[in-house]
Amino acid sequence: MRASEIRELMKLASRPDIVSFSGGMPGPELFPVEEIDEIYSGLPLSVKRDALQYGPTPGYPPLIESLKTYLKSRGLSLDGNRILITTGSLQAIYLTAKVFLDPGDRVVTEDPTFIGAIAAFRSFQVKLDGVPLDDDGIEMNGFVQQLDSKPIPKLAYLMPNFNNPAGLTMSRKRRIEVIETLKRRDIVLLEDDPYHELYFDESDRELVTPIKALAEESFPICYAGSFSKMIGPGMRLGWLLAPDEISLQCEIAKQSVDACSPTFTQVLAHSFLSQGKLDPYLKRLRIAYARRAASILKSLDAHMPDGVIWTKPRGGFYVWVTLPKGLDASEVFTASVNRGAAFVVGKAFDPQGIRNNHLRLSFSNPPEDQIEDGIRIIAGVIKEQMKK
Amino acid sequence: MRASEIRELMKLASRPDIVSFSGGMPGPELFPVEEIDEIYSGLPLSVKRDALQYGPTPGYPPLIESLKTYLKSRGLSLDGNRILITTGSLQAIYLTAKVFLDPGDRVVTEDPTFIGAIAAFRSFQVKLDGVPLDDDGIEMNGFVQQLDSKPIPKLAYLMPNFNNPAGLTMSRKRRIEVIETLKRRDIVLLEDDPYHELYFDESDRELVTPIKALAEESFPICYAGSFSKMIGPGMRLGWLLAPDEISLQCEIAKQSVDACSPTFTQVLAHSFLSQGKLDPYLKRLRIAYARRAASILKSLDAHMPDGVIWTKPRGGFYVWVTLPKGLDASEVFTASVNRGAAFVVGKAFDPQGIRNNHLRLSFSNPPEDQIEDGIRIIAGVIKEQMKK
Repeated sequence: MRASEIRELMKLASRPDIVSFSGGMPGPELFPVEEIDEIYSGLPLSVKRDALQYGPTPGYPPLIESLKTYLKSRGLSLDGNRILITTGSLQAIYLTAKVFLDPGDRVVTEDPTFIGAIAAFRSFQVKLDGVPLDDDGIEMNGFVQQLDSKPIPKLAYLMPNFNNPAGLTMSRKRRIEVIETLKRRDIVLLEDDPYHELYFDESDRELVTPIKALAEESFPICYAGSFSKMIGPGMRLGWLLAPDEISLQCEIAKQSVDACSPTFTQVLAHSFLSQGKLDPYLKRLRIAYARRAASILKSLDAHMPDGVIWTKPRGGFYVWVTLPKGLDASEVFTASVNRGAAFVVGKAFDPQGIRNNHLRLSFSNPPEDQIEDGIRIIAGVIKEQMKK
Repeated sequence: MRASEIRELMKLASRPDIVSFSGGMPGPELFPVEEIDEIYSGLPLSVKRDALQYGPTPGYPPLIESLKTYLKSRGLSLDGNRILITTGSLQAIYLTAKVFLDPGDRVVTEDPTFIGAIAAFRSFQVKLDGVPLDDDGIEMNGFVQQLDSKPIPKLAYLMPNFNNPAGLTMSRKRRIEVIETLKRRDIVLLEDDPYHELYFDESDRELVTPIKALAEESFPICYAGSFSKMIGPGMRLGWLLAPDEISLQCEIAKQSVDACSPTFTQVLAHSFLSQGKLDPYLKRLRIAYARRAASILKSLDAHMPDGVIWTKPRGGFYVWVTLPKGLDASEVFTASVNRGAAFVVGKAFDPQGIRNNHLRLSFSNPPEDQIEDGIRIIAGVIKEQMKK
């Protein structure tokens, strides 16, 4: 998908007369504005000055410490690993790509996969090979086949939790299979986990345990996390937790890219973690997004014609809709936008940029009371196009 | 210079028992904390929410508008050009490099030149050719010779105002010569201008007119600017003002690097500009840095032995010291640090990373009352090493 198309999409997503399921953006009314106000007004002068100053390339030291505590609480070991604070988790992906990839290299991804990762990898002129997902995650036969195809891939890129765009989550059993498979091949895994905290049901807390936490350093895993869905993407803060040597190489790469991530927002994020504001906020978020997910799933049930299927997310932001044979997502898009509803077409998430029989519906951003109206519009368009 | 060495330097720079002339960092007590407090507390809820959200890749739209007004007031035309807000001006350099450079390409720079630009260019495996500076700026004979050497360079990179690290400023006459030379060759100029506003004397306001403003679009110029020295580097905000087509390519590159720059600090920067806080703040800054410059120059005069020479900056952050023949900056550095003063050794700014008979002294960061003590230490070490 071309950048100009993405720009157009983003413009549409901000039109007030359109119900937008396009952007992977948090609901603005859910942002922790009160918490940030409280944090900012409590900062001493010396810390406000630090917030305006350059910080070390790996990150604002107090944030690195509070993030270590947080990551340990999520089962991740820091032994032999270093944290690099990045300008959004996309930068963690980009820096890993910059360190590992040369033109002509191969990267194995899920299919569908994150549009930003596709852009980052493609910017190094590599070949992307996608492996389809089933209900348990990446299909193992296809995965093994791609890993063993020549040239041997430099990276495997996976988003096991509430995958963007499919909303699917890898089962524990599949995670273990992935570990066993990669361990024997010594291929670096880039595990992208921005939606980690956004499970809808407390009973899924175990399910989301990162592959990195399960793998016990049996092979190199670069783990990318994000404050975008835990505080807000406008902070532009993420992190890369990676084995020492890889992390240092990424740090050197970062010195040439932007030198350091914003100290101003790192100061705020540190207080958010260290003042215990994260857990109560996440509780609120999980309830709110679970309601929106329930609302969109109910609307899809009520309005979509037979022959259309979709995923049932246990967390995150997305539902992935599969159109009946013969329908094209771009045609559904054009007609839907004319009637007031937008989404992202499937080909944006195809590593090859071709297959276009899916819609990604993001339920995180539109107000809950508009979800049904939006789905009714899209369902109406699909019904009409099925008759053609 | 290796990244590990730079890390060590930065650690030293933060030791309280060391007078550090190392970092190109603003003096923390000069940061506009009161202005930022006032801006933040005046933001309506809807804007605070915007501050936490993703923004468009080119930048937060109100900031782009207020920046346009600012740039026009500095003589820059926006016709045929677009603004891209970047994560520090280093990212503007990096993105330009990413768009233009392939392994084996050549870039012509000043010698000495900015360490971050060296890192950004080198990360694309290009060859850097430095051209010495005289009192008027880049030496024209050497510049022309490098521009005409094969393979023809893809970029010329210049910092005409208060150059980092030399503190030198290109004369108006030399700027015109540079324009005439590049115009006839159609080589892209990357003009880096982070210290633009930090002239010490109001009479130099004309002197700092960017090459881009003088060249009237007669050839492509990518102009990189920064909020780091106008508000604070912890904001991580800069910009690239470039011809439409180049700017769009850089925007696409940015989509794979970090998607957008921090909205949070863009919101603050917009208010800083639009509420008229910039000009009064710059007046304060110019007075403060002029005093520090006067103080370091006086100390150098008082303590440095004959045979040591240095530049006399008219603005910016830096004095560039040339050691007598036979002395090595790294040896001076080691002995100085042991006695309590630090700086950056010259080879860090040599495009080839070799020549080491210079010191970069940054006078922006140390408190004014420590400047003389620090210079006395360094001068003492140089005197001793001259006797050997």
